[in-house]
Amino acid sequence: MTNQTSSLTQVPGFSAVGVTCGLKVSGNPDLALVLADRPCAAAAVFTTNSFKAAPVLYDMALMERSARALRGVVINAGNANAVTGEQGLRDAEQMARSVESACNLPIDTVFVMSTGVIGDPMPMDKVERGIRLARDLIETEAGRQGQDAAKAIMTTDLVPKEAFEQTTIAGHTVSLGGMAKGSGMIHPNMATMLSVIVTDAAIEAALLKEALKQAVSRSFHRLTVDGDTSTNDTVLLLASGQAGHPSIEPKSPEFETFVRALTQLCTRLAKAIARDGEGATKLVEIVVRRAVSEGEAESAAKTIATSPLVKTALFGNDPNWGRVLAALGRSGVLLYPARVSLRLGDFQLLHNGEPVAFDAVAAHDWLTEADEVKLVVDLDVGQAEAAVWTCDYSYKYIEINAEYHT
Amino acid sequence: MTNQTSSLTQVPGFSAVGVTCGLKVSGNPDLALVLADRPCAAAAVFTTNSFKAAPVLYDMALMERSARALRGVVINAGNANAVTGEQGLRDAEQMARSVESACNLPIDTVFVMSTGVIGDPMPMDKVERGIRLARDLIETEAGRQGQDAAKAIMTTDLVPKEAFEQTTIAGHTVSLGGMAKGSGMIHPNMATMLSVIVTDAAIEAALLKEALKQAVSRSFHRLTVDGDTSTNDTVLLLASGQAGHPSIEPKSPEFETFVRALTQLCTRLAKAIARDGEGATKLVEIVVRRAVSEGEAESAAKTIATSPLVKTALFGNDPNWGRVLAALGRSGVLLYPARVSLRLGDFQLLHNGEPVAFDAVAAHDWLTEADEVKLVVDLDVGQAEAAVWTCDYSYKYIEINAEYHT
Repeated sequence: MTNQTSSLTQVPGFSAVGVTCGLKVSGNPDLALVLADRPCAAAAVFTTNSFKAAPVLYDMALMERSARALRGVVINAGNANAVTGEQGLRDAEQMARSVESACNLPIDTVFVMSTGVIGDPMPMDKVERGIRLARDLIETEAGRQGQDAAKAIMTTDLVPKEAFEQTTIAGHTVSLGGMAKGSGMIHPNMATMLSVIVTDAAIEAALLKEALKQAVSRSFHRLTVDGDTSTNDTVLLLASGQAGHPSIEPKSPEFETFVRALTQLCTRLAKAIARDGEGATKLVEIVVRRAVSEGEAESAAKTIATSPLVKTALFGNDPNWGRVLAALGRSGVLLYPARVSLRLGDFQLLHNGEPVAFDAVAAHDWLTEADEVKLVVDLDVGQAEAAVWTCDYSYKYIEINAEYHT
Repeated sequence: MTNQTSSLTQVPGFSAVGVTCGLKVSGNPDLALVLADRPCAAAAVFTTNSFKAAPVLYDMALMERSARALRGVVINAGNANAVTGEQGLRDAEQMARSVESACNLPIDTVFVMSTGVIGDPMPMDKVERGIRLARDLIETEAGRQGQDAAKAIMTTDLVPKEAFEQTTIAGHTVSLGGMAKGSGMIHPNMATMLSVIVTDAAIEAALLKEALKQAVSRSFHRLTVDGDTSTNDTVLLLASGQAGHPSIEPKSPEFETFVRALTQLCTRLAKAIARDGEGATKLVEIVVRRAVSEGEAESAAKTIATSPLVKTALFGNDPNWGRVLAALGRSGVLLYPARVSLRLGDFQLLHNGEPVAFDAVAAHDWLTEADEVKLVVDLDVGQAEAAVWTCDYSYKYIEINAEYHT
């Protein structure tokens, strides 16, 4: 995928590269640079973790100063620059300054993201070399293709994750392209999840922020792999405005159109992350229907999605509705046991609180083959609905996390 | 352990047995009966899950009617009698009636507990045979020894769990004996955890309830294996009053003494459950110190204790303080990163927010050998403290839960 044109560089006016500077022991690409031809409106969503990594603290301050004129983002994998004290803050700032200087950009125009091991000082000599390599490459054909950018931000990810959407605003084609990384420590409210999304839509920074907030709340925030939220999670959205339509107005139909396309893009990236969850054999979509509110539907779905017993049953290809009910029952949402129904794929497991006789062998066989599974919980107490994405828990999850050492 | 005298029957006036009636495929004991010589004051704590199993619903109503005159409890493993509709409620009641009738006890004097598979109808013919076997055995030497009672309530447990404490009240020796089961679906607010505790203390039902509530809040409710809470969890406490001291008064020093002994007993049972957590290689105690409140300390400790990333790191014998901080940081408790310190066993990992150089090889070696690990988090923002018990996540946890089919 990343040897072809990247989803980012399919958006007119953006270039991107990934280079290898020795931050990963594997020798794989480990530093990505994304640049815009012109100043962009920017919006970002950050981790809610109390321990925010240095680049997150840097970016939060940057967004206060400069959300109307960003030119790019530098991202490294291999080192999270988290719990690195004052030196970490200086290093995050230095990464921005180095890119600005190497690429002849004004100060305060570059965003910084890091992912990897926590607590180690950032090897700045390697990072500096990576920035020089990226600068040299990004003006070439490789930069126009976006080569290796999505690969460079991977940690335990098995595959790079990209998505591209187009929509029409005021008769103009608007493109949105995104890449993301993340496969463990993934949970609502941002997890070791980084995503960069670029668009040529014309929209002011304040409204862009509102659009991103709405899209993220129904995509990345509905993603959970293991319930852990990282110190570094960040989603950045850059909008260059060069699609040529008049700037999107608040509460306009054009705003709705843009949010819809953005939500769709973010959902595709979120599902790609769940599918690539550490050790996952299945992408699991949990839908809670007819809840009293969307918040309650989401909360019930997340409780089921984070239950290790549900996730191990799915790994074992066991249609174990008892575990689903046990998780649902502790979620604290309004429900009446005698009204609850459950469906897994095409198998109705429970109807109005009563077990339904189903072909357990066929269900097991279907689960064994399926790489995408949908569980629908019908509460029959209201009108609201929410979907959450997760994956199963396998031996491989334990292996990855017991053997990925500090 | 259960071939010697049970902890329950070390308390004067109680007998107990476990028998085999075919509810478990393994052929191991699967029905336990505990009887008191005289009517007991009773208190119970039940699961908070919205899906309460039939025996839980039966017992909750029973406690409203008859908390001053209980004579015993019947417990089966192999079938949870949960999500079994109206028939399940009739079966739970029938289990109580059968014991009352077989043992010549008044109606509404027997408590019922079940654990095992959810959603299958209770095979009442087997249960009735088990009750007859237990009745025949309990009047013999086996009943005075408590033989096999703690074994009969096991499901995925590897070992039976019992504890015994004595204290002195008004110059009289007071004994407390307990047994418990549980190794998965274990979480605060009761999990597939059953416990029966008996004592010869003299104390009225209302005050006994207060004592149990206090003890459970600092023991069983601070236990988590996998964050799941079951449909059946129940702790029952029976007090016969035959120790001979005057009835314990509210807010008296005797009440404090009794609560202390009861808390100690419950804590020993809770730790035994964590140690026997499905697939566990270690008992993990997480202590959060100097929090602003005991609630916040408990909440922070539980967030760390339920983090799959922390639990897999402990299985991998990796002193991964980054994962501990990431979990702590998302717990939502008041903290300042620069004040947080962490200690794992004798290894100081973090001091006032800064990583401490420690011998990582020695820490790894110690973790590899240890079957009990203590992690201390010092928040330095207040005076409150709480401890939580859990275990690590191993390949075996996945195996047990992926292969224990419905």
